[in-house]
Formats: sequence, structure tokens, C-alpha cells
Amino acid sequence: MAASKSSTPLLKDELDIVIPTIRNLDFLEMWRPFFQPYHLIIVQDGDPSKVIKVPDGFDYELYNRNDINKILGPKANCISFKDSACRCFGYMVSKKKYIFTIDDDCFVAKDPTGKEINALEQHIKNLLSPSTPFFFNTLYDPYRDGTDFVRGYPFSLREGVPTAVSHGLWLNIPDYDAPTQLVKPLERNTRYVDTVMTIPKGTLFPMCGMNLAFNRELIGPAMYFGLMGDGQPIGRYDDMWAGWCTKVICDHLGLGVKTGLPYIWHSKASNPFVNLKKEYKGIYWQEELIPFFQSLTLPKDCTTVQKCYIEISKQVKLKLGKVDDYFNKLADAMLKWIEAWDELNPSGASTGVPNGPAK
Amino acid sequence: MAASKSSTPLLKDELDIVIPTIRNLDFLEMWRPFFQPYHLIIVQDGDPSKVIKVPDGFDYELYNRNDINKILGPKANCISFKDSACRCFGYMVSKKKYIFTIDDDCFVAKDPTGKEINALEQHIKNLLSPSTPFFFNTLYDPYRDGTDFVRGYPFSLREGVPTAVSHGLWLNIPDYDAPTQLVKPLERNTRYVDTVMTIPKGTLFPMCGMNLAFNRELIGPAMYFGLMGDGQPIGRYDDMWAGWCTKVICDHLGLGVKTGLPYIWHSKASNPFVNLKKEYKGIYWQEELIPFFQSLTLPKDCTTVQKCYIEISKQVKLKLGKVDDYFNKLADAMLKWIEAWDELNPSGASTGVPNGPAK
Repeated sequence: MAASKSSTPLLKDELDIVIPTIRNLDFLEMWRPFFQPYHLIIVQDGDPSKVIKVPDGFDYELYNRNDINKILGPKANCISFKDSACRCFGYMVSKKKYIFTIDDDCFVAKDPTGKEINALEQHIKNLLSPSTPFFFNTLYDPYRDGTDFVRGYPFSLREGVPTAVSHGLWLNIPDYDAPTQLVKPLERNTRYVDTVMTIPKGTLFPMCGMNLAFNRELIGPAMYFGLMGDGQPIGRYDDMWAGWCTKVICDHLGLGVKTGLPYIWHSKASNPFVNLKKEYKGIYWQEELIPFFQSLTLPKDCTTVQKCYIEISKQVKLKLGKVDDYFNKLADAMLKWIEAWDELNPSGASTGVPNGPAK
Repeated sequence: MAASKSSTPLLKDELDIVIPTIRNLDFLEMWRPFFQPYHLIIVQDGDPSKVIKVPDGFDYELYNRNDINKILGPKANCISFKDSACRCFGYMVSKKKYIFTIDDDCFVAKDPTGKEINALEQHIKNLLSPSTPFFFNTLYDPYRDGTDFVRGYPFSLREGVPTAVSHGLWLNIPDYDAPTQLVKPLERNTRYVDTVMTIPKGTLFPMCGMNLAFNRELIGPAMYFGLMGDGQPIGRYDDMWAGWCTKVICDHLGLGVKTGLPYIWHSKASNPFVNLKKEYKGIYWQEELIPFFQSLTLPKDCTTVQKCYIEISKQVKLKLGKVDDYFNKLADAMLKWIEAWDELNPSGASTGVPNGPAK
């Protein structure tokens, strides 16, 4: 690995890379120096009879729809079909502590000096250093070399809390919704903002699934990407849904969510007309969803991610069911997801309880 | 003004630059291209018999301790002596809508391309564009050229709210407390983070007074820098105190606080041993002050900054008076400050009520 300082890649045996796709994974060629040491979990979306080609030399397992149906049986319908939301199946079958997920239209970006960015390495750094959700540090990440907590930052908060999520950004094509894509078809993100920051407690954010890493043991069961795509009235809100649930649970459990570096190069904008059709219900529903999540509180006895998630599903049914019957279906799917998660992960590895020897 | 695109400097007749000092203001030479069109309010700290030299060509008024005593009479003791906290007197006597305040050891910084940064112009941009405190935008300031709100950002929140405060940062000497200065005497801030962001609602931050701008009409009366320096048990918490009060009031009134660009070049670290003496009570008091401000709620009938501030002073007396008698004195000084403010600003210009024709 020429681009990494260490001879052994960080967390080599503790991290899976999850990729949802409908096509041959030629994009991996560009990522080879960074991804090849890791194990890939490929979730094939759409027609299971299609053969997805993976470049030689990568260590991977691939699941298509037939595999998902076989493994989850009657619970398989909680996994979306014909939508990249299917990626969350990969989170569930992983046995690793960390997940990095990336879209197949994302390539290696360069930093302002022209150096190729090892996105995965930066995510790992983000996940392995603490977060500071309780007070804002004006010089951003206080744990980064050359930076610290500024004057006026309470000393009792300087140890931070464990980081559950690292949300990376995108150069070139920004992650805009269909209306913004339509209004600004030529806008490209060229600004490299050299920072990572904790999203403060109590603040929601739009979590994009394109370039995302998380600690599966700490937060995995909250990373459900919902019911999207085929047979559903909505698309392109899979990662948003996961982000809102995840942030509320992280805030409740005292875990951190970071955003900022690393950047990837997002190569092509999806079709804004198609996106508008997928999004339009989401665009007005979100006006009710955001206040719902902003006011959502979890009782003290919700001490695990699973308990929190089940509580959220109850509140979804109670308060959002009247917005649209879709949310009743979604609430049921959320419960099914947790049941399936616990079946595939029986050891309690994702409940916050230490699982085996410390790594 | 070579460095500004516009021939007329922005807000030339609507902004005062407030500078607290104990020495000749040679540092203004470097700022001449940017500051000369504006009016300066110089607040002379310490011995009033000393003559402070101001470089030729600047339009200024200067107040020393004798002036403060004369203007405020029995209320003059709410203004700190022998501490840069005295700067807030300048906010009070200004008749302008906007204030920029800067320390006299701060110089013009350069951006990564080597261009001199017009800090004042950036602050004005920050103040004149809205803030987004209710939801986090992962591409940072959505109003900046080349950026927008990302997918999943509620459309109802995209108009933002008025910006009350613009908090700028520092290259070279970071704003560290004495213990951090002692531990890392050689640390310099070399990282130019090219962003401005809104500090989310409900999140407190350490507001530094070194490089700070605000809308005096929207938030002026909250910008009291407390009782510091001569005769007081504490120093170097003047701006912090103002920041905590200001943020709580902005959150209550639906106003925005931004941090990030512009950077200034902070030339010399203050003596960490002297700082430790000034700070040590603050360092342990802040462990109680932060939870106090985090849990502070203002009643609905607090519809002006003054009413909010008076309510905070009551709660300071009630809840912090038992931490130390200093907070009883401070609570009284807070009331005195508001009385003095209203005497000098009788029109209600700072109460959020529109004052004269819109500008």
C-alpha cells in the first residue's frame, strides 16, 4: 500500500467494505491500493441472474436477491429491492466491528496538494478518535495533530465520547436533491474544507450513504436503510432515514457522529427527473419527519441500540402512521430488521456489550 | 481599497471598529487598506494619563477611564478596568448597526494562495447572509457561492434566520488556555479551514473576542464582557461570558451565530503564567457555568435582548451566587450594564424593533 504510511493497513481484519451495485465493479480498479487488503461485501441490486464482474485480486462475498431471500426467509422483505438501500443487508451479514460503505460511482479524490486521498484511512482515524458532541470547539477536531481544545472549553468534556459514525463528503457532484439539481445543473463542489467535526448533540443532519463509515458494534442495528425503491412510494431517503434514527440514538446513548473529511470524487449526477419522481413524497414528508425526530425522546431504559430502535419504530407507527400508511409498513419493517439482525448476530456484538477480547 | 472588489467599502457608515488597547496603535498600519474607511472606537485600558498614538489618517474617537467614569457616572463600575473586557464600553457608545472588534496584537493573515485576507469584509458577508441553526448542512454555509443545501435538508428551513454574530478565527497563535499553553508552548495554528458555519441551536461555544463582529441592533445588549481584571477574582473569561449569554439569547430569539472565516494573524502568545493566575478560578467555575447555561431556559415573554439579559442576571444570582459571591456582584453589574445601555441607546435601536428606514 504505497499511499499508507503503515505497512499493515489499519483495522485490516476488523472492517468490511459494503458496496451496493447493479453493474460490474470496474470502479474498484482506482481504489485497489486502498481497498485490496480489506474484505468486500457486495450487495447486488436488481436482477439476480445478472453476473457482476469484480476485478481480480479482491477478497469479496456477493449477495444477490436470491441470497437475501434465502438467508432472511420471511423477513427478507425488510430489505429494499431495486434501490441502493439494499446495502444495509451487508451491514447485517458482516461479522466485523467496522463498516465502510461506498457507492460505485465514487472515485479517489485528490487533496489540494494533488495527493490521492485514502478515504478509508481517514474514516478509520475518525472512528478511532473520540467525538465532542456536548460543546463546540471552534478549531474543529481537537484531537487532530496541531490542534487542541480552545480557551473556554470545559476540561471535564475533553476526553470526548466514542465515535459511532464518520460521514465523508464529495468533491465534484454534490449530493443535491432533484429540485436543486434541476435549478443548478452545472454546480460542482470544488471546495476542499480541511476539517472533521462532531455534529453537536441535539442537532440532526442529512446523512448521505455514498461515503460513510461506522462502528457496527456501537451503532449497527440503527443503520437500517428503510423501505425504498420497488413497490414503495419513495426513494432516495434511505440514508436520510438511517441518519435521523442513528443521530437520535447516538445522542441518547452518548455516542459521537462526525462529518467532514474524507472527500471522495463523485463522478456523475443521477438523472434529476427520475430523482424528482423518487423524492417528491419525501420532500414534503420530511417537513413532518424532521420535527418528529427533533422532538423524539427515548426513555432511560433504552440502553441498547436495539431497544432504542424498537422504541423509535413504535413512535413512528404512533405519530407518523397518520401522515401516510407507508410509515406503518416502515415501522413493521424496522421491527423485522431488528429481529433479523439479532438472529444473524446472536452474540450481542452490536449491543454495546464488549464482544470477546479487546482488539 | 485595492483588496476590496467594491469601490465603496461595505457598510462604511453602519459599522464601528472597536479596539481595546494599552499601547500605541501601530498595528493599524497593516490594516490601513481595510480599516481606514471606517470609524474606530478606541477604548483605552489602564492609566488614563498615558497618551495612545493612533496612526495618521484614521477616523476615531478614544475613551479612557476618565471618559468612562464621566459618561456612565455611578454605573461606570460595570465596565472592567485593567482588562480588555473594557471594550464593551465601545459597543455601548457606538451608534452604528454593526460592530467589529479586534485585538491590537492581531494582524492581517494570508489565505493559502498568499492573498491578504480582508477580515472585515468576510465578517460583513457573514453578518449579511442568513444562518441555519435548526439543521446541519454538511456542505457548510449553504449561501456561499458554489454551495447549496444538500439532499435531505428541509425546504421550510432554507430561508434561514438573521445572523447576529460572526466569530472569526486565528492563524499562528491559537486561543488556548494557560494549561494548554504551558503543555504545548510551540503549537501554532497553520490550518486554514475554508468554511463558515452556523453553530447549531442548543450548542454552546467558546466565543473569543479577538476577532469578532456582531449586529449591534440584534444582539448588542448581550455583549457585556463582565467584571474582569482589576479588583476581580478572574480574568480571560470576559468574551466567554459574553458568548454564553449571547448564544443562549440568540437561540431563544431565533438568531444565528456563525464561526469560521475570517482568519486573522495572532502575533504573540500572552504569558501562560500570568494567564494561569487570571484563569484558574474560571477553569473550575466553568465546570458549573456550562451546565448552568446549557440548562438555562428563557420564558416566552422575554421578547427583547434586554428582557432576556435581565432574566439571565436573575438566574445567575439565584443559581450561581452560591458558587461564589463574585456571581452576585456580576449579576448586579449585568443589570447596571443594561440600564446604562438603555440610557445611551434610548431609541430602542437594540431591542429588535426596526429603527428608522430599512437600510
